[in-house]
Amino acid sequence: MSENISTLQENRYSYIPKLPKGISGKMESIKINFGKSTEAFADRAELKQMFSNTYGQPTATFSNESSNAKTDPLTVGVILSGGQAPGGHNVIAGLFDGLKKVNKDSKLIGFLGGPSGILENKYIDITDEYLAEFRNTGGFDIIGSGRTKLETEEQFETCAQVMKKLGVTSLVVIGGDDSNTNAALLAEYFKSKDISIQVIGVPKTIDGDLKTREIPISFGFDTACKVYSELVGNIARDSNSAKKYWHFIKLMGRSASHIALETALQTHPNICLIGEEVDKKQQTLDNIVGNIVDVILKRSNNGCDYGIALIPEGLIEFIPEMKALIAELNDILAENEKHFSTLSGFTEQSEFINHKLSRDTSYTFSSLPWDIQRQLLMDRDPHGNVQVSRIETEKLLIELVESKLKELKNKGEFKGKFSAQSHFFGYEGRCAAPSNFDADYTYSLGVAAVLLINAGLTGYMSSIQNLLSSSDDWIAGGIPVTMMMNLEQRHGKKKPVIRKALVELEGAPFKEFKARKKEWAINTRFRYPGPIQYFGPDGVCDAITITLKLEQENIN
Amino acid sequence: MSENISTLQENRYSYIPKLPKGISGKMESIKINFGKSTEAFADRAELKQMFSNTYGQPTATFSNESSNAKTDPLTVGVILSGGQAPGGHNVIAGLFDGLKKVNKDSKLIGFLGGPSGILENKYIDITDEYLAEFRNTGGFDIIGSGRTKLETEEQFETCAQVMKKLGVTSLVVIGGDDSNTNAALLAEYFKSKDISIQVIGVPKTIDGDLKTREIPISFGFDTACKVYSELVGNIARDSNSAKKYWHFIKLMGRSASHIALETALQTHPNICLIGEEVDKKQQTLDNIVGNIVDVILKRSNNGCDYGIALIPEGLIEFIPEMKALIAELNDILAENEKHFSTLSGFTEQSEFINHKLSRDTSYTFSSLPWDIQRQLLMDRDPHGNVQVSRIETEKLLIELVESKLKELKNKGEFKGKFSAQSHFFGYEGRCAAPSNFDADYTYSLGVAAVLLINAGLTGYMSSIQNLLSSSDDWIAGGIPVTMMMNLEQRHGKKKPVIRKALVELEGAPFKEFKARKKEWAINTRFRYPGPIQYFGPDGVCDAITITLKLEQENIN
Repeated sequence: MSENISTLQENRYSYIPKLPKGISGKMESIKINFGKSTEAFADRAELKQMFSNTYGQPTATFSNESSNAKTDPLTVGVILSGGQAPGGHNVIAGLFDGLKKVNKDSKLIGFLGGPSGILENKYIDITDEYLAEFRNTGGFDIIGSGRTKLETEEQFETCAQVMKKLGVTSLVVIGGDDSNTNAALLAEYFKSKDISIQVIGVPKTIDGDLKTREIPISFGFDTACKVYSELVGNIARDSNSAKKYWHFIKLMGRSASHIALETALQTHPNICLIGEEVDKKQQTLDNIVGNIVDVILKRSNNGCDYGIALIPEGLIEFIPEMKALIAELNDILAENEKHFSTLSGFTEQSEFINHKLSRDTSYTFSSLPWDIQRQLLMDRDPHGNVQVSRIETEKLLIELVESKLKELKNKGEFKGKFSAQSHFFGYEGRCAAPSNFDADYTYSLGVAAVLLINAGLTGYMSSIQNLLSSSDDWIAGGIPVTMMMNLEQRHGKKKPVIRKALVELEGAPFKEFKARKKEWAINTRFRYPGPIQYFGPDGVCDAITITLKLEQENIN
Repeated sequence: MSENISTLQENRYSYIPKLPKGISGKMESIKINFGKSTEAFADRAELKQMFSNTYGQPTATFSNESSNAKTDPLTVGVILSGGQAPGGHNVIAGLFDGLKKVNKDSKLIGFLGGPSGILENKYIDITDEYLAEFRNTGGFDIIGSGRTKLETEEQFETCAQVMKKLGVTSLVVIGGDDSNTNAALLAEYFKSKDISIQVIGVPKTIDGDLKTREIPISFGFDTACKVYSELVGNIARDSNSAKKYWHFIKLMGRSASHIALETALQTHPNICLIGEEVDKKQQTLDNIVGNIVDVILKRSNNGCDYGIALIPEGLIEFIPEMKALIAELNDILAENEKHFSTLSGFTEQSEFINHKLSRDTSYTFSSLPWDIQRQLLMDRDPHGNVQVSRIETEKLLIELVESKLKELKNKGEFKGKFSAQSHFFGYEGRCAAPSNFDADYTYSLGVAAVLLINAGLTGYMSSIQNLLSSSDDWIAGGIPVTMMMNLEQRHGKKKPVIRKALVELEGAPFKEFKARKKEWAINTRFRYPGPIQYFGPDGVCDAITITLKLEQENIN
């Protein structure tokens, strides 16, 4: 084995992912069963019109029964789309092994660097040998990923031409909500033009916001949350040992706070902000800082000048006045792009901006700490927009909390000390080697995708259900992507999109958090999950996330 | 089990640390053997005078032979001193079990919150029941730690009084080089005053800079490096999948760069700076940035606008002009404390400072990015000194690299893209649950400390050797602390201190790095170690650090 391969990785190559019984046998014992025809979440009439060829298809599940499934060789293309998530390599392993199960002459073509790989006709033939070094590993480096969006007819046409030339008759899109929306549009396009290429999606995102009843979890969420929980637990133990720091820890998750919530359920921090709650209650920055200071004061009165606060990456976009500020800034920067770029230095820029902002947002802007103002103006994406993910919300909150505590100290209302450390965890978890759960789950998703293709379906997403049971009893199948859709306003137009699954404030995971929140805040009830284990007792190696467990128990 | 205890932690309670054969039997089969009398590293005559009662004692080892070791009950006190390191709890478990092995009526008193626990007479009686929840766990929360230094005669006297009252006849100090130096001074003081309290040290520090031939590694280094390597590996895999970011990762390690070096050997980054090399070559900030840019350009020419750079926390203090700047700043701030505190805002402060700085350092200061200037002036410790650990060296380097690349781009010499992310890992590793190695090693250190006490020794540090062999064949013993000492200038006075073990540029680990460095720089040879495993195959669970392996192979 190469010296560049770690011992753990080498050992993981021989892990055999567990498959549901329903799809683990040979083709003649895998039967497809169809459910009822389906409807979208909302905007059904419009969606039915937009997807006139693929709307309303029935759900499908596979069972271990004798069948007359086809066994002709298939040629399938696959792309990885968007941000990395643990398990991507195992989806591809599942696709490969599933294809060989259908017929040993089947082929898997990996388009390189994401969707652009199709447009640019860059691909590799995936072989068993090549795949061997990627089984059960993290990362998307097997074929690379990319963020190009397939959404125009012109692109669709190119895809068709490239794939036809390669003999590819099905495409598997491994991606998040955007990519799967586009996969559904592509499926509809092909069908409307009588192009015989099927398109199947696989639900990926560490953020956990791509889910529905039939797709209880997106892959990667399990592993990423376990890595973050390991780190937060380690830091919590440090906080409780040194007893001198408050650690403000930002966690990935732009639109939804599932990661922060799951990590909180795993580690019992003193504070965990949830974007959806901030939004629902329309909490201002002042409210949020006030709540944090409240916990700090109470702990300080108990002699505990230390603690853990978790902050979701997307928080800032949920805070009403910040949302308004960011929107106004984006507009002003877009309208004055040229002039703005001639302004050198922050002072000139901020003066210019302050004049253009409305009264309220100008107040918001100028009451922000200097370095945050600077981040808002300086770090912009290629489209000139404020880069929300670059804003150091964790430091913003520390600065605001510090100045509030200073005030209270001067009034004699705070007698403790406040010393803080900030952290941001995201990249640490996106490419971790998949947990046993994610390794099994993604492999099953891959095999299921092949079976959906073999059944002639298109516009479906691969689905594995019954996840509370042992993997033997998981139920593999697929659902039409249109089921997850509704229409949303995008750049002034109504667009079909997969509805993001945000944290439900009435859902079991948030309710559990809410019930425990107060006790965790004042007391020190840290829980230390430790690192992902691959070889130990089942309870240690195969535990699912608390979020999934609570959600599933609540459904059943 | 409490819902606050994770499944992994619960499972780890039942792990039985492996002990060397020489100390695993009953007392009647553990014999102490003495080596030759010893000498200090340097300054022998002065040290012999300073430690007239404890200098020159022989080394000791234990073997599995019939002996007439005493079996009277002992009452031992223990403190955790300084920063956390994985395995502290197991040292205490080893002490406890070792004491019970000597006599079941022995007692272990844990002083709370570090050395101040003795001075303030705050302690707990450690029982088997209490200990059970801490076996094989991370953190120092069993009795807490602290940074109070025991160094004055008055403190020594208080220690004696408190311990006498409690019937404590030996003290175990679990700490780094400073704490062990003070432990040796305390041992000498007690002996000189005929106070019959023995003092034994245990070598702790994640930084890895407390080591010598007989103490091949300080505890915690193994686990902490494994956590950092997990994270760096995950980020490297992300970098190699997304192919769009350079990640600049700062790692703990102030005086020595052992952590950065070990993490580099584990993960094969494109760049890893080593403080000791910077010092040796007297590299300026310009040199360092130039070297980094060189690698970035070469990779960019290969189409790779991404990579990993590791930076030791202490780097900035090794860079000659930064060292000079920090020293001048500390002097100016100390001399002008009052006036400086009246200056509001950074502009006033930096103007004031700039006038006081010498010509060269003023130039250095003003060529630093604005936010780093600000960190130098604003974040100061309680003594008014610049807080070097708070300086975001990783961001400093990113900013300087960025502006250098912009220059080159304008000249047409750089055609790629440079987008960077910064990280700092430290707190993530200090309180991780100890690896099997650290769990075994610390437990053995604890048992050995008891055996040294039982043999009537004082001024010794517990030692475990022969670490390349299986733990059965490890050799437990102790060495007199004076062996590790020399005199160093501290605040204008010559003080006895344990000589820090820095990265040796002629040592095997650095030479290995140097030999591979170029290949790792240009190519992408990332290695992904993954998380610490506690239950898997031996090769995965019991591997020692590459640093220790190379150093030991080189000795033998």
